[in-house]
Amino acid sequence: MENKPASHEAKHGYMVGAAPKKNLIEEFACRFRETFFHDDPLYHYKDQPKRKQFWLGLQSLFPILEWGRQYKLNMFKGDLIAGLTIASLCIPQDIGYAKLANVDPHYGLYTSFVPPLIYAAMGSSRDIAIGPVAVVSLLLGDMLKKEIDPKKHQNEYLRLAFTATFFAGITEAALGLLRLGFIIEFLSHAAVVGFMAGAAITIALQQLKGLLGISVFTTQTDIVHVMDSVWSNVHHGWNWETVVIGISFLAFLLTTKFIASKNKKLFWVAAIAPMISVIISTFCVYITRADKKGVNIVRHIEKGLNPSSVHKIYWSGTYLAKGAKIGITAGMVGLTEAVAIGRTFATLKDYPIDGNKEMLALGVMNIAGSLTSCIVATGSFSRSAVNYMAGCNTAVSNIVMSMVVLLTLEVITPLFKYTPNAVIAAIIISAVAGLIDFKAAYHIWKVDKLDFMALLGAFFGVIFKSVEIGLLVAVVLSVAKILLQVTRPRITLLGNLMGTTIYRNVEQYPNASKVPGVLIVRVDSAIYFSNANYIKERILRWLRDENDLNKEQGLPDIGHLIVEMSPVIDIDTTGIQSLEELHKVLTKRDIQLEIANPGPVVIEKLRAAKYTDRIGQEHIFLTVGDAVAQCAPKAIEDA
Amino acid sequence: MENKPASHEAKHGYMVGAAPKKNLIEEFACRFRETFFHDDPLYHYKDQPKRKQFWLGLQSLFPILEWGRQYKLNMFKGDLIAGLTIASLCIPQDIGYAKLANVDPHYGLYTSFVPPLIYAAMGSSRDIAIGPVAVVSLLLGDMLKKEIDPKKHQNEYLRLAFTATFFAGITEAALGLLRLGFIIEFLSHAAVVGFMAGAAITIALQQLKGLLGISVFTTQTDIVHVMDSVWSNVHHGWNWETVVIGISFLAFLLTTKFIASKNKKLFWVAAIAPMISVIISTFCVYITRADKKGVNIVRHIEKGLNPSSVHKIYWSGTYLAKGAKIGITAGMVGLTEAVAIGRTFATLKDYPIDGNKEMLALGVMNIAGSLTSCIVATGSFSRSAVNYMAGCNTAVSNIVMSMVVLLTLEVITPLFKYTPNAVIAAIIISAVAGLIDFKAAYHIWKVDKLDFMALLGAFFGVIFKSVEIGLLVAVVLSVAKILLQVTRPRITLLGNLMGTTIYRNVEQYPNASKVPGVLIVRVDSAIYFSNANYIKERILRWLRDENDLNKEQGLPDIGHLIVEMSPVIDIDTTGIQSLEELHKVLTKRDIQLEIANPGPVVIEKLRAAKYTDRIGQEHIFLTVGDAVAQCAPKAIEDA
Repeated sequence: MENKPASHEAKHGYMVGAAPKKNLIEEFACRFRETFFHDDPLYHYKDQPKRKQFWLGLQSLFPILEWGRQYKLNMFKGDLIAGLTIASLCIPQDIGYAKLANVDPHYGLYTSFVPPLIYAAMGSSRDIAIGPVAVVSLLLGDMLKKEIDPKKHQNEYLRLAFTATFFAGITEAALGLLRLGFIIEFLSHAAVVGFMAGAAITIALQQLKGLLGISVFTTQTDIVHVMDSVWSNVHHGWNWETVVIGISFLAFLLTTKFIASKNKKLFWVAAIAPMISVIISTFCVYITRADKKGVNIVRHIEKGLNPSSVHKIYWSGTYLAKGAKIGITAGMVGLTEAVAIGRTFATLKDYPIDGNKEMLALGVMNIAGSLTSCIVATGSFSRSAVNYMAGCNTAVSNIVMSMVVLLTLEVITPLFKYTPNAVIAAIIISAVAGLIDFKAAYHIWKVDKLDFMALLGAFFGVIFKSVEIGLLVAVVLSVAKILLQVTRPRITLLGNLMGTTIYRNVEQYPNASKVPGVLIVRVDSAIYFSNANYIKERILRWLRDENDLNKEQGLPDIGHLIVEMSPVIDIDTTGIQSLEELHKVLTKRDIQLEIANPGPVVIEKLRAAKYTDRIGQEHIFLTVGDAVAQCAPKAIEDA
Repeated sequence: MENKPASHEAKHGYMVGAAPKKNLIEEFACRFRETFFHDDPLYHYKDQPKRKQFWLGLQSLFPILEWGRQYKLNMFKGDLIAGLTIASLCIPQDIGYAKLANVDPHYGLYTSFVPPLIYAAMGSSRDIAIGPVAVVSLLLGDMLKKEIDPKKHQNEYLRLAFTATFFAGITEAALGLLRLGFIIEFLSHAAVVGFMAGAAITIALQQLKGLLGISVFTTQTDIVHVMDSVWSNVHHGWNWETVVIGISFLAFLLTTKFIASKNKKLFWVAAIAPMISVIISTFCVYITRADKKGVNIVRHIEKGLNPSSVHKIYWSGTYLAKGAKIGITAGMVGLTEAVAIGRTFATLKDYPIDGNKEMLALGVMNIAGSLTSCIVATGSFSRSAVNYMAGCNTAVSNIVMSMVVLLTLEVITPLFKYTPNAVIAAIIISAVAGLIDFKAAYHIWKVDKLDFMALLGAFFGVIFKSVEIGLLVAVVLSVAKILLQVTRPRITLLGNLMGTTIYRNVEQYPNASKVPGVLIVRVDSAIYFSNANYIKERILRWLRDENDLNKEQGLPDIGHLIVEMSPVIDIDTTGIQSLEELHKVLTKRDIQLEIANPGPVVIEKLRAAKYTDRIGQEHIFLTVGDAVAQCAPKAIEDA
């Protein structure tokens, strides 16, 4: 039915082009580069002498060499204030987070000493505050205690914790070195919001033990078990002195938080409130000797600096594998948090941050931490925000913080003896409250319902089962969303905007008019094995529905099917096979297939598969307009 | 820097539209329908009376009610010839495939009796030939023998085999009923080609035991173990009479195959060659009593029809779970094969085939099979091709075949007593040789190198490890390819085709010219959490490179960045966040962001997120041409 000559040059004289052919090695190299080196890390090394290149390399490994040389005294003021503020915030938090990981309080402080120093030398974020964080500590404690009972086998538990920390560092460094950082991007923002909110609630629930002075508490973390524990203890398990201390300081902390949220300039009120609470409550307990009345106190914090823990790591045996497994999970979660923080603040101040380099820095910092009695450290959301608001300029604020922690460890740990656990619990609850991001959740609900389902899935997974299950749910839902999208892509019907050669989705542009006798569809996705059959069937369904409609309205049958291919990024062999099947079916029905604007990869593959010969070169057009002009010249003239 | 009025209507007067807003339920319903009911299964029921709807429903469950009423005698001739041909082919194959599954030969024959009858009533493919197939039998045998030793605990092994078959049926029927058939589409064509070729070689290697008359043979299936077994037996383990029989009949079979491949009309030569080989070899062995000289013979095939096996299935206990696990895997692989065959032939003859209905039919057929002493049945590649070439018209050819098998079971099984195993082995080798699809492999290599890697991965996984590992590799590589594509989408630079308002990829169209001071990029993918950051960074890299180039050539800096969004199918919250970050960075650098042609979903979400307000409605354009006309009116006039 199509006997026109093979030339179909439109008025403008252009035809479908093809990208210059690459050979196999070039093609692989190009793909490899885009996958692993898309940030072009060697850009700055171009056209530089060898010496300069070496110096640049050293700087890239230790950014402190770069910014340190331009460091000025007036910057130090901001860094000092920020450093002191986050130190006052981190000390009580460290004690609490160590408990979440089921280790003694001083291990939390150790973790705020060595890792921040390493990060300051190697990291490129200027605003991140390094140390133990709530979610990772909980996850670590949760997974470790499934392997070893932290009360019965304290020493083995600690050794496994350091082993896990070591492997968390190895994982992070390896992802950075192998440039596989994009793996953590498979956790969607929505899933992270849900996971964080769930973890915050789980952590807060765990603090009810300290806040209410309950001595017999469940070891489970899900909401059902915890609430059951709380209620069953209500009559003789709660310690009323503890409850009074806990609730009043929690009220104080939440009030300061509220004030800070209303007036951004008063952020420091919320920032120093925890330290003030610790000082006041410790003093009160010391005066009243409330600990004799059953108020639990911190009791003892080891004095002195981080001891070496090289000999404590399990370098062989079954615990090596178990530690590695736990470390990989904890390291990935820590990475997700740190990279998200780094990116957020880098965007706010518009400085470049290299994800892979960050990962290397975080990894080395955790490896060093594992050798010096630290648990897994990463960037803390709440402390980084305070750091930023307190006016930090560089990673020097982390150095200041770690010096304060050093001083604390060397001098004032004995003063923490009478600090009531209830205050630590109140501080943690008020800290994790910030992890519940209602605004983000509402935003997600408004913008994307499917994303919101992922959020809910991760959230309920954490609070009703466990942190790991929640994490698993988050990853599975994130990946499932991508796969669903790829499996059921959109195929739209196009119509002409009268008086132009523009063709647009008829659903989005109701005044776009269909061309009689021609069906124009656009495939909005790569055509792959996972969707090739769907795409073929969906196109045939459009054809059937359109013909039904035409019959009703007494319009002519469809004689030409134009497939607009602009959005088709790629096609694989199954996809080509589906197009061939489509062509066969259409030919049997006396309908001519036309293809408009195939991209460079697609046209190359269609040519390699000889598909272009089969449907005919003259049926491949540069634009939909050209195709319509050829198929239905009369319709164009009428318009 | 952009102080123009908010109106930017181009000459044509059109603006970016939005699809009519759907409420939450409509949106979910629409998505649900496209995911699970994209084939619009109720189309034929529309506007029909209740009685007719019931009859149509019954027909849709049992298509035989539909085509049976139009069945004519002249169709029967083709079906009879095809049925007899595939019967002569399936009987010796069944005996061999039963051995692959480590069960007695008659179970193979049982499987060619009940399942084809059920399929004939319920299936919608007219060309598929149902029965046990090589790959599924091998997979089944491989997985079953890991749980129970088939020699020591024959009865338990058989019970587990029926249990697995039952669950294979349940899996297939469930996927069909729940309309989850798209799950099997996550196995790419390339991975299947590699997997099949690997399985064929593994099966052929297994036959060396029978072909060479080796009595002590490895239980492993990988090539290293098998070849080791073969060589270590070369001196006193090979039976030379067997080798002579095996090799000569293999040569005969391969010759007939070669003849048939050269002349399609002689396909029947290859089709009846196996039966002829069986008859001649059986007769020879019977005459010469070669079995006394160590030639292994089939020895005994149970006479009579399929006995019930309801009481043999494990309805409880640990074997229930193990059987279910094996059954799910075997069922999925069987499904993949059957659906691929069904589709291929349906396209050749252009009749509709409903994937989900097919799955239900295959599932019910295997459930019925498991209750009547059958192992997992599915569509056979080789026999279906013979069925098609022999001129089958409907599933009646399957009924004819199963009647011949019935006759065989009732009457002539004793005649198989003297059939040498070597001939069965030769028949299987020549049958599986067809599973190695060199042409497809070459085609894949030429069209898509990454696909070819998936092919190789699955192939080597099967031959060097095991069928399951190969299958796992195939699935993982298939999904990884999708994820890689989604994570690193293409971002292209666009240029103007002089004298038109068409903007195209500058790499594909070398004469497309850039607009001075304006950078035009097109994002060729949905913007999701997994690629949002990459897209942002890639765009900024284009910007940097372009500015470097401009500096060299003394051209003006980029003042406008136009992001062409036509191919952006969808965007999620992380994607919007990335666009916001991009906008912030550009604003800091005094570059105006412009967006061209966002799709309906995208514009709706951008509006919900108030992104459109932030970048300004006047910076969203219908086409790239409009955006350029606004940003660089001079450039347009010059052109």
